Amino acid sequence: MKLRLGLPKGSLQEATFQLFKQAGFELTVRSRSYFPSVNDPELEVVLMRAQEIPRYVHEGVLDAGLSGLDWILENEADVVEVADLVYAKSTPNPIRLVIAVANDSNIKSVSDLNGKRIATELVRVTQKFLRENGVNAYVEYSYGATEVKVPHLVDAIADITETGSSLKANNLRVIATILESTTKLHANKESWNDPWKREKLQNLAVLLQGALRARARVGLKMNVPGDRLDTILAILPAMKQPTISQLVNSDWVAVEVILEERQVRDLIPALKRAGAHDIIEYPLTKVIP
Amino acid sequence: MKLRLGLPKGSLQEATFQLFKQAGFELTVRSRSYFPSVNDPELEVVLMRAQEIPRYVHEGVLDAGLSGLDWILENEADVVEVADLVYAKSTPNPIRLVIAVANDSNIKSVSDLNGKRIATELVRVTQKFLRENGVNAYVEYSYGATEVKVPHLVDAIADITETGSSLKANNLRVIATILESTTKLHANKESWNDPWKREKLQNLAVLLQGALRARARVGLKMNVPGDRLDTILAILPAMKQPTISQLVNSDWVAVEVILEERQVRDLIPALKRAGAHDIIEYPLTKVIP
Amino acid sequence: MKLRLGLPKGSLQEATFQLFKQAGFELTVRSRSYFPSVNDPELEVVLMRAQEIPRYVHEGVLDAGLSGLDWILENEADVVEVADLVYAKSTPNPIRLVIAVANDSNIKSVSDLNGKRIATELVRVTQKFLRENGVNAYVEYSYGATEVKVPHLVDAIADITETGSSLKANNLRVIATILESTTKLHANKESWNDPWKREKLQNLAVLLQGALRARARVGLKMNVPGDRLDTILAILPAMKQPTISQLVNSDWVAVEVILEERQVRDLIPALKRAGAHDIIEYPLTKVIP
Amino acid sequence: MKLRLGLPKGSLQEATFQLFKQAGFELTVRSRSYFPSVNDPELEVVLMRAQEIPRYVHEGVLDAGLSGLDWILENEADVVEVADLVYAKSTPNPIRLVIAVANDSNIKSVSDLNGKRIATELVRVTQKFLRENGVNAYVEYSYGATEVKVPHLVDAIADITETGSSLKANNLRVIATILESTTKLHANKESWNDPWKREKLQNLAVLLQGALRARARVGLKMNVPGDRLDTILAILPAMKQPTISQLVNSDWVAVEVILEERQVRDLIPALKRAGAHDIIEYPLTKVIP
Amino acid sequence: MKLRLGLPKGSLQEATFQLFKQAGFELTVRSRSYFPSVNDPELEVVLMRAQEIPRYVHEGVLDAGLSGLDWILENEADVVEVADLVYAKSTPNPIRLVIAVANDSNIKSVSDLNGKRIATELVRVTQKFLRENGVNAYVEYSYGATEVKVPHLVDAIADITETGSSLKANNLRVIATILESTTKLHANKESWNDPWKREKLQNLAVLLQGALRARARVGLKMNVPGDRLDTILAILPAMKQPTISQLVNSDWVAVEVILEERQVRDLIPALKRAGAHDIIEYPLTKVIP
Amino acid sequence: MKLRLGLPKGSLQEATFQLFKQAGFELTVRSRSYFPSVNDPELEVVLMRAQEIPRYVHEGVLDAGLSGLDWILENEADVVEVADLVYAKSTPNPIRLVIAVANDSNIKSVSDLNGKRIATELVRVTQKFLRENGVNAYVEYSYGATEVKVPHLVDAIADITETGSSLKANNLRVIATILESTTKLHANKESWNDPWKREKLQNLAVLLQGALRARARVGLKMNVPGDRLDTILAILPAMKQPTISQLVNSDWVAVEVILEERQVRDLIPALKRAGAHDIIEYPLTKVIP
Repeated sequence: MKLRLGLPKGSLQEATFQLFKQAGFELTVRSRSYFPSVNDPELEVVLMRAQEIPRYVHEGVLDAGLSGLDWILENEADVVEVADLVYAKSTPNPIRLVIAVANDSNIKSVSDLNGKRIATELVRVTQKFLRENGVNAYVEYSYGATEVKVPHLVDAIADITETGSSLKANNLRVIATILESTTKLHANKESWNDPWKREKLQNLAVLLQGALRARARVGLKMNVPGDRLDTILAILPAMKQPTISQLVNSDWVAVEVILEERQVRDLIPALKRAGAHDIIEYPLTKVIP
Repeated sequence: MKLRLGLPKGSLQEATFQLFKQAGFELTVRSRSYFPSVNDPELEVVLMRAQEIPRYVHEGVLDAGLSGLDWILENEADVVEVADLVYAKSTPNPIRLVIAVANDSNIKSVSDLNGKRIATELVRVTQKFLRENGVNAYVEYSYGATEVKVPHLVDAIADITETGSSLKANNLRVIATILESTTKLHANKESWNDPWKREKLQNLAVLLQGALRARARVGLKMNVPGDRLDTILAILPAMKQPTISQLVNSDWVAVEVILEERQVRDLIPALKRAGAHDIIEYPLTKVIP
Repeated sequence: MKLRLGLPKGSLQEATFQLFKQAGFELTVRSRSYFPSVNDPELEVVLMRAQEIPRYVHEGVLDAGLSGLDWILENEADVVEVADLVYAKSTPNPIRLVIAVANDSNIKSVSDLNGKRIATELVRVTQKFLRENGVNAYVEYSYGATEVKVPHLVDAIADITETGSSLKANNLRVIATILESTTKLHANKESWNDPWKREKLQNLAVLLQGALRARARVGLKMNVPGDRLDTILAILPAMKQPTISQLVNSDWVAVEVILEERQVRDLIPALKRAGAHDIIEYPLTKVIP
Repeated sequence: MKLRLGLPKGSLQEATFQLFKQAGFELTVRSRSYFPSVNDPELEVVLMRAQEIPRYVHEGVLDAGLSGLDWILENEADVVEVADLVYAKSTPNPIRLVIAVANDSNIKSVSDLNGKRIATELVRVTQKFLRENGVNAYVEYSYGATEVKVPHLVDAIADITETGSSLKANNLRVIATILESTTKLHANKESWNDPWKREKLQNLAVLLQGALRARARVGLKMNVPGDRLDTILAILPAMKQPTISQLVNSDWVAVEVILEERQVRDLIPALKRAGAHDIIEYPLTKVIP
Repeated sequence: MKLRLGLPKGSLQEATFQLFKQAGFELTVRSRSYFPSVNDPELEVVLMRAQEIPRYVHEGVLDAGLSGLDWILENEADVVEVADLVYAKSTPNPIRLVIAVANDSNIKSVSDLNGKRIATELVRVTQKFLRENGVNAYVEYSYGATEVKVPHLVDAIADITETGSSLKANNLRVIATILESTTKLHANKESWNDPWKREKLQNLAVLLQGALRARARVGLKMNVPGDRLDTILAILPAMKQPTISQLVNSDWVAVEVILEERQVRDLIPALKRAGAHDIIEYPLTKVIP
Repeated sequence: MKLRLGLPKGSLQEATFQLFKQAGFELTVRSRSYFPSVNDPELEVVLMRAQEIPRYVHEGVLDAGLSGLDWILENEADVVEVADLVYAKSTPNPIRLVIAVANDSNIKSVSDLNGKRIATELVRVTQKFLRENGVNAYVEYSYGATEVKVPHLVDAIADITETGSSLKANNLRVIATILESTTKLHANKESWNDPWKREKLQNLAVLLQGALRARARVGLKMNVPGDRLDTILAILPAMKQPTISQLVNSDWVAVEVILEERQVRDLIPALKRAGAHDIIEYPLTKVIP
């Protein structure tokens, strides 16, 4: 039995392959092929444009796939969300689908869009949003380079943005956010009802999320004199249960803890001052709570 | 006054810029910009996806543009064809939009497509063709990589092909040709009725076509003894009027002629045998008949 | 005293340097040089074509080298195999030297090769194989691109293949396997009899194999309630002795185990279900059993 | 409050960013920008030519910066050295500023430079050195490619060298060493007197040095039968305090130690012979003693 | 006898080599060398930073060199200008050295610079300009990236600009132009007084300028019926003397003329309308009036 | 009927394709293919290692091919030389096969090679040369990087050199030249006896040599007052017959001549001084005398 999985071709492909490799699945593909081989005989992978994956998952051509919430909605795909996966982005901010106009446009809010022309790659999501806001506008499909179409070709655009820097570079001003989007491991409904496929998907989710969690975390080990242990433990984040083991023939203990990487820059100097010795930090591949 | 011209962004861009440079128009653009500068104050150029240019020409946002006949038809754009331009292709064959199925499919002809699913980037052109052939099929928009969708995702595709080699590499078989397509310089109807814009467009057509014609031609000069002139002229292609000038203080004449490059490989050995001396071939930038 | 070691120049070089770096030996070489510097004063490294290394090891110009079994045999080199090293390949399948013919050739088996012409980079190995099979054929040295020579230039080829995909792409059919080959750390016989050199080579083998073993393995740590320990241990592969340590002031134990990476995808979900907490996976650089 | 930090633009930039990432600070910068963003709201980073950083630190435009001792001296910058950082070099040798002449020059020692012309990027440091040696020579500023100016343009050069290979390739001979230089984290004097900034700088130094220390070290774990422990401990470097923990229900102990990577190649074979089992080596990200 | 010529290393090198190739001098250089070989035994070429060439020409180490007027002035080099060469620029505008401040600075004119700090690569030229304008400011040498130093590090900069786009991208405003600069072939005064060297330099100037002139010009040939000749000649630019030759046995004439390329786009359509046939345009390598 | 032609794959391929394009034959090949398509239905082209082409021409598998004289001799191929083609080299010197030893070797002449070991890619040619010189040495086949084998692996090498710079960089000294080699268009003897194939080959030779001749030549045109014509003609190289035509209604004549490019740098200044006006130089594609 095999699980048929659609993964995004193109700009996300390398990041996706790296995530799967870290999760334990090695994908290899020849340059122009769309059918990678994978070192798990229970998986069959197809590369596709992210835009199309939810449609084919919905229709059952694929058991499951990775794509953004934006494209799941645009395809009106009725699928099961198995896991939320945040990767391959340059900031921790979510990706947003926003409506933007020229800086000097007199369109100030969504209601000003009545009767205007809007270019977007996500026509249906945009139309639905406008309808819900009681706005009647002409929404046209944009094949790309959407952000340069204002103001010469259209009055406004609905476009994906992460940091807003491309919008700023094109002198655009955001007037509304249609939705926030992250990558979803999503499944076909029938496939989800198959027990073998559901367990396979749940295991996949555990491994992928374990890999992502490990990216923002590090392992920390240190040796602590017995009488400094309480001080040290007080410094460590409360919710983390450190692993403490007694050293042989000694009144020192070894303390080991998993931390978020961004805490380390404050903790290491503090631990050192509090009497910890031989602090080492080591990298992690997976973290499962 | 300015003529607003849409040129294709992407894979055709470099070839288009080279053609315009040869025609006398130097376009320069910074890497992420869509608004090249051009050394002709009467032109304003916008880079766009070729798919969208006919739509914006039709609507009058652009006065004119370069795009394929396929996309003019897909956009149902009612525009004026100013010139046919054949460039940036690896063979002299026209580009074709064909319907293809898996080699081992039992779909043999268009009529077998009834009730089938077809993926294509050119949905309307394909639907129109099927309708005209009395076929009722489901045509879905493909965001790319169309040729790998058969047979897993769809039964057939309608895709652009030049040499057929990508179809062959994907084990596909052509069952019908929907249309042949070349690049067209096409104009908005109102712009065409403006005398200044029409003359500007006609001049542009002369220069672009003069540049393309020069690519397949070379200049040939040779010195010929007076008594061999008739023999030499008999060898040269009949329709070409060579330029003959008498040399000073000599009974030799200089013969100069413009030829198609592919004739040269047979003519040069023949001319040499017939008594021509000092044959030189030189490159051309434009040829206007 | 120094050990003189030949390493393969060219396509294997980067992978070899990475393996040595992981094993603890940093090699640096300027772009056109063949004499890398190495951070071990007891080693002297020469880069060479893999084809030539066994010959120079055999002759004692080098104490030892890395090359494939195929080239050791082709050079008829009488050397000591110190270690088998599997690296720098895209699949876990061994590399094979096979005899292949055109798909539509009427050569079906080795005996059909009588009187035929065969191109190969490994002339002697091929001749020996044919002789042992009672076949009399003309074997010619091929400087490269061997797989395109059938059927225009020769009747069959003897060529190296890993996945068979290049053979398939050239419409070739395998009719026999001459040998399977892996990379060997091999030594000159006299050098091997020198105690200092032998120990240096054995240590090198331990480190290189420890590095390779680590590539397919990961470290796994988890915290386990005392009463779940037996369940957890039952899930872990039997032959692996996990390291179990008691946590201070707690009835939990820490379990640590080294596993093959390909087992992890099944074990992690199972361990979690069985009550393990805070499972972390971390990367390894060397594993010595 | 923010600490304003100058980092070197150019050839050192990537290595610097990698070091900071390992230390826990992620810097991202768009291709032509000089103001990277950093995931620490207490830091403000500016990219600059290494030559200029000490000047701006001295003047208080920056609180601190990274630059070589050579440029601190050339700028006559009166700054506080916070930490010595050795990174981004191909060898462990220090970088030296040397005076070099043509191989066949009759300049043999510093005193022979009297009345000669010397090209260098470090004019003041060179002038000071000559003055201290009682030599009167003409020192001119070199914009680059200093090593090819001898002998046609100048008599000698004062240039930075690491391995000496570029000097050798240009047929130059070193006659004196002006100074040895490493990268310094250095601070403005007033900033150093501010308690918040001083602590921030000290923490930064701990993390950067912890990252650098980790690059040359590895973690080693092994299981040891109780009766072999003393033998094993005798093999391990004396100054390192290994972490020893008793295994549950067993008379084995787990021994864990942090070692310099260059010791490993001798220790692993020795430990194995002495009875250690399941030796694993794992990578480290930070080591704080 | 040889002429020793300094050519700019770096960003201008490729353009300079192309210009010399077109002028008839083929320069070849191995990647890290500064001494190209040239196919003229009378030339000896040295590659150098453009900043240093005028200094070495002034001092007689070189007979002549190519560098900008800006660097000739900065070096206070007393040299002979042999030829003005405009090449390797993206626009026909001259390069300018300008003083720029932040857009929102309250420095509005040169006189506002009193007491301010200015960064520049051309310290002496800037100081001289300020002195002549009665301004007393602190001018500091900038090693690069000058345009990002305003406003954090300095109050103003003096920097080279061609299109002004880098200044605009850094939100800078030009308040004064110090000088306009083009590339000069300049000679040492003594070398210029040597008759052989002077003639060599004059010939070099003719060839380099002939090559540059040819870049903006094309050759045009056409056949014209005798009775249309006057009309055609009236269309052609007055100052150009066309070459007219009578065709054999015909009342047509061949007209040939050299034109500036930018005239061609208007002339070709006009000539065609006026009765010219077989118009061809061909490229030129040198044009000497 | 088709002529089957072998062209060199690899480093010479691009230069060969450019030469054929200039000669009028456009070759296109997909990245991994060995069978280019060509716009001449009478040609069938195969790409091969240059080393193997003469063997397959000799055996009649190919009608003709391009390869060096060195490989024709090494293959002991009995073929017809159709044309000598000098292209794709960085200098006008011929390529030479030389015997080289270490600079400090005491091998001074060929006779000192008795009993020595020599590595070379051209074993037979080298053996024949040694035999003819009465020397008995061991010649071994080198798979590449031959020049670094001296002195550690062999006593001498026989290697191809063009400028000698690689030999110099490896501290080698040339003691003998075995042969000089250029690229030959060579034909199978039977193919040459076929009249159609012989004419096709002769035409090909005319076009290829015409293209090569054009690379070193330019066209020069100028206008000359009638009374200066003799002076001008006296300056032009004697053997070249210039084309002189009388200008209409004028006492000026137009002079046109084909020159070697290396003459132009002296002639243009001289012609200008002698009264020529409007001198233009234009590029050539073919020159057939």
